[in-house]
Amino acid sequence: MTSFARDQWYVAAYGTEVGRELFTRTVCGESILFWRTGAGEVTAMADRCVHRRFPLSEKPSRLDGDRVVCGYHGFTYGADGVCVGVPGQRRVPRTARLTSYPVEERDSFVWVWIGEREKADTALIPRAPWLDSPHYTTVYGMEPLAARYGLLVDNLLDLSHETYLHGGYIGTPEVAETPITTEVDERAGIVRVSRHMDDAECPPFYSTSTGIQGRITRWQDIEYHAPCLYLLHSRIAPVGTPPPRPDGTDPDAFHVEVVYAITPETEHSTHDFWAVARDFALDDTGVSDFLRENNRTVVLQDVVALDTLEKIVATEPEGTQELSINIDTGGLAARRILKRLIAQGISASAATAPAAPAAPAVVAAVAP
Amino acid sequence: MTSFARDQWYVAAYGTEVGRELFTRTVCGESILFWRTGAGEVTAMADRCVHRRFPLSEKPSRLDGDRVVCGYHGFTYGADGVCVGVPGQRRVPRTARLTSYPVEERDSFVWVWIGEREKADTALIPRAPWLDSPHYTTVYGMEPLAARYGLLVDNLLDLSHETYLHGGYIGTPEVAETPITTEVDERAGIVRVSRHMDDAECPPFYSTSTGIQGRITRWQDIEYHAPCLYLLHSRIAPVGTPPPRPDGTDPDAFHVEVVYAITPETEHSTHDFWAVARDFALDDTGVSDFLRENNRTVVLQDVVALDTLEKIVATEPEGTQELSINIDTGGLAARRILKRLIAQGISASAATAPAAPAAPAVVAAVAP
Amino acid sequence: MTSFARDQWYVAAYGTEVGRELFTRTVCGESILFWRTGAGEVTAMADRCVHRRFPLSEKPSRLDGDRVVCGYHGFTYGADGVCVGVPGQRRVPRTARLTSYPVEERDSFVWVWIGEREKADTALIPRAPWLDSPHYTTVYGMEPLAARYGLLVDNLLDLSHETYLHGGYIGTPEVAETPITTEVDERAGIVRVSRHMDDAECPPFYSTSTGIQGRITRWQDIEYHAPCLYLLHSRIAPVGTPPPRPDGTDPDAFHVEVVYAITPETEHSTHDFWAVARDFALDDTGVSDFLRENNRTVVLQDVVALDTLEKIVATEPEGTQELSINIDTGGLAARRILKRLIAQGISASAATAPAAPAAPAVVAAVAP
Repeated sequence: MTSFARDQWYVAAYGTEVGRELFTRTVCGESILFWRTGAGEVTAMADRCVHRRFPLSEKPSRLDGDRVVCGYHGFTYGADGVCVGVPGQRRVPRTARLTSYPVEERDSFVWVWIGEREKADTALIPRAPWLDSPHYTTVYGMEPLAARYGLLVDNLLDLSHETYLHGGYIGTPEVAETPITTEVDERAGIVRVSRHMDDAECPPFYSTSTGIQGRITRWQDIEYHAPCLYLLHSRIAPVGTPPPRPDGTDPDAFHVEVVYAITPETEHSTHDFWAVARDFALDDTGVSDFLRENNRTVVLQDVVALDTLEKIVATEPEGTQELSINIDTGGLAARRILKRLIAQGISASAATAPAAPAAPAVVAAVAP
Repeated sequence: MTSFARDQWYVAAYGTEVGRELFTRTVCGESILFWRTGAGEVTAMADRCVHRRFPLSEKPSRLDGDRVVCGYHGFTYGADGVCVGVPGQRRVPRTARLTSYPVEERDSFVWVWIGEREKADTALIPRAPWLDSPHYTTVYGMEPLAARYGLLVDNLLDLSHETYLHGGYIGTPEVAETPITTEVDERAGIVRVSRHMDDAECPPFYSTSTGIQGRITRWQDIEYHAPCLYLLHSRIAPVGTPPPRPDGTDPDAFHVEVVYAITPETEHSTHDFWAVARDFALDDTGVSDFLRENNRTVVLQDVVALDTLEKIVATEPEGTQELSINIDTGGLAARRILKRLIAQGISASAATAPAAPAAPAVVAAVAP
Repeated sequence: MTSFARDQWYVAAYGTEVGRELFTRTVCGESILFWRTGAGEVTAMADRCVHRRFPLSEKPSRLDGDRVVCGYHGFTYGADGVCVGVPGQRRVPRTARLTSYPVEERDSFVWVWIGEREKADTALIPRAPWLDSPHYTTVYGMEPLAARYGLLVDNLLDLSHETYLHGGYIGTPEVAETPITTEVDERAGIVRVSRHMDDAECPPFYSTSTGIQGRITRWQDIEYHAPCLYLLHSRIAPVGTPPPRPDGTDPDAFHVEVVYAITPETEHSTHDFWAVARDFALDDTGVSDFLRENNRTVVLQDVVALDTLEKIVATEPEGTQELSINIDTGGLAARRILKRLIAQGISASAATAPAAPAAPAVVAAVAP
């Protein structure tokens, strides 16, 4: 049984990754080909030729203007996935078309819809406006994770691990010590976990980037929009700084928006997109370099830990149990929501269509 | 369910590979030991000691005259596979014998029979006489393929891929553009696919080896003898050259016989034997070196593509469909014939024998 | 179905391997954490945090005095496996405890009990007193084997393979030629195999270490205490040396006690512990270095052969048969005893407890 939630938007790439070269990424087990037309539009279609399944992203497949030419036998497709040429005959079979995917470029991400095409409403895409806002400077990256996406959801919803796994980078004793509050919007599929530390040590990640010396008030306000988008609103200010004003402005504090997109690649691997947007030192490339390097190090600490956990979870006996405590409230809520989204995707697909294979569903036939 | 056709001859090796060293190759999932007796005869027997299954091809197993001595406990076998000595006792159990395989050296190949011994008729072996003819010069090799043999059959029966996958080597636009004719001899299990290009670009493979400058008539006449032997009769001549004479001679054209033996190793791997025999520049080692290097490059382009396809096919959902067109007529016929041969091999084996394990079927017993 | 005998003692490590660093070893599929308390006692507990299963042996998990701190979220455990601290709350759930294992340090080995705790009687541990006796000097090591433990049991109970696999080291023609006698104590689970060679070539292993020139009487007396401990009492003396005296002393011969502990790691891998204790040249480091290097070479010859066999056995069809002869009498007895021990362990576990997962069996619950 699949563990992916279908009928959902997922981040497939940064917009900067997709250009006039053929680019492939697997999302929820589906291999998708991305490229940008001459006019600059991102396209998304199945990365398997309908003829003999050769990957269109693989050399010597190539882009020829706004057409993709398969490197095996030369089947040629337009930006809509429709086949426009085959070898040895003039007539192109009408069924020769690649599955194409709804795709939307937003907030510097390329979002792709996995599920039934007609349900793909771009209004459902959760936002991360800081990433391409002129009032923020953003550093970002993506690390491949050899672990199921659920382990990354667990990880990010329980930041007590910063103290242990990321000590010396973003963790201090106060993170693990300070209780959290959790709010769950079951209908919208959003989990909010907050931890406000009034008087805490300032970890290197923030002291070096902000220049604060001494202790801080540190707020961690998580918003997880299941299944893919995770936002951590981080507020840092020297102890004694006034709180945000009633109008919502907060000129005396530093704000960092840490954004993760958690995109399942296969049942046992995940694309771990991460971005760090700040509202200070906007033009300071030294700060950018430091935050990029430091956050990447932190992400790689998670990657090592979660890759290890995946090997354990993948081989442990059915029914192995965990022990959960208060800090896990948000993570358990996220699991519950994901379970519901997965079930909804399955029943929707069962209701409206015969079981569809993941690969191009064209009929094998010799077209004369 | 196996996908190998049993009761068939397969190419196991070139004769030059088998000598007075123990040599092993797996054919249709059966690990077979080959060596040449002092008198020069090739032998073929199971590559697993009957005692504890140690591979007889593995050091410190060794050849001692016309006997093989197992490197684990010293069980010793004659050229017929019968055990002639065991450690710690004089009496050799009567059941101690290795399965031996019918084997025939012909046209530079070592052919082995996979199936019921009594059906092994050497008259059934298809011929490739050019390979050791004094009127031809041959270059050859073998590349291991991490793909099921069916993908190589598909590949070789549809040469339109030369234009795309092998452009700059053997492919030109005319190969993909020119329609084919296909003839199928269902009873004999032979598929013939022909493509005659009257006025075509001469690819480097032929221009460099023949010295032809300018355009050519190029004939590709395929004969596939299922399951193992593939012949491509290639005729190349400058445009305007007279056709072959009524008596079959063809003194003004160049002829290249491209031979493949497609031998399944396991369900997911194949021995890709290839040979190129020519009737010109017989003593020109420069031409030999060029053709060997160039054909090997072409074969490795196929290997990369088919290894990629294997990974896709091996993980795709059951029932994934392909779209076939005219160029696939020969390949689809080959699949149909292979399917029949596989079914025949299974029903024959079911009719005449109890299910036999692939490994030596000797009885476990303490022989006093 | 498991192939491990439960309710048994197994060698998990040499005592020298376990200190004030976290040390992990998998025994019979169970990942176990070992460390020594400040007072010097060896502890053994499950190497998986009860919270999210992070391995306690994996950095940044660490030892803090006599407590282990998990590197993921900081769950902290005492030497008895009981959890004494969790993040974000004062109350520690009562069910938060790691499975702890009975453990005993003896004869230089760390023995661990795999099975029901209350049956763990240290009187059942078989002895190898030479290993830490002042009258013997011992060299030792452990080689990881990518093969099921049964293949190592087969190997060690049939030393005829010394002649072939270990020729030039410990094998001579007489080992394979000389018949054996076998005694089986089914109730105690002990197999004894003896081979007394009255006039044999002296292999380099013994000629170099003892200095004997010329032929020897060589006794090999095996005692296998299923499942884990294998003793080879080896007596070497120049031909003509008087036999051992009636009082058991044997001053004119050289004695080497070769000890193996055969510890299953997983279904397909084994810890191959080996030690060589001698009663001569006690202070000669040259002899120690020679025996260590030579025995390690011999063990690695077995490792290569058994790793090869594992690949064969793991992929061969169900019901593949072997042929056994006189030399296999001891090995077949060992298989029979192991089969019984495995069945006993399974039925005991079925009788006294519900099916228990290998990992910490604590209940998933949010402890408020």
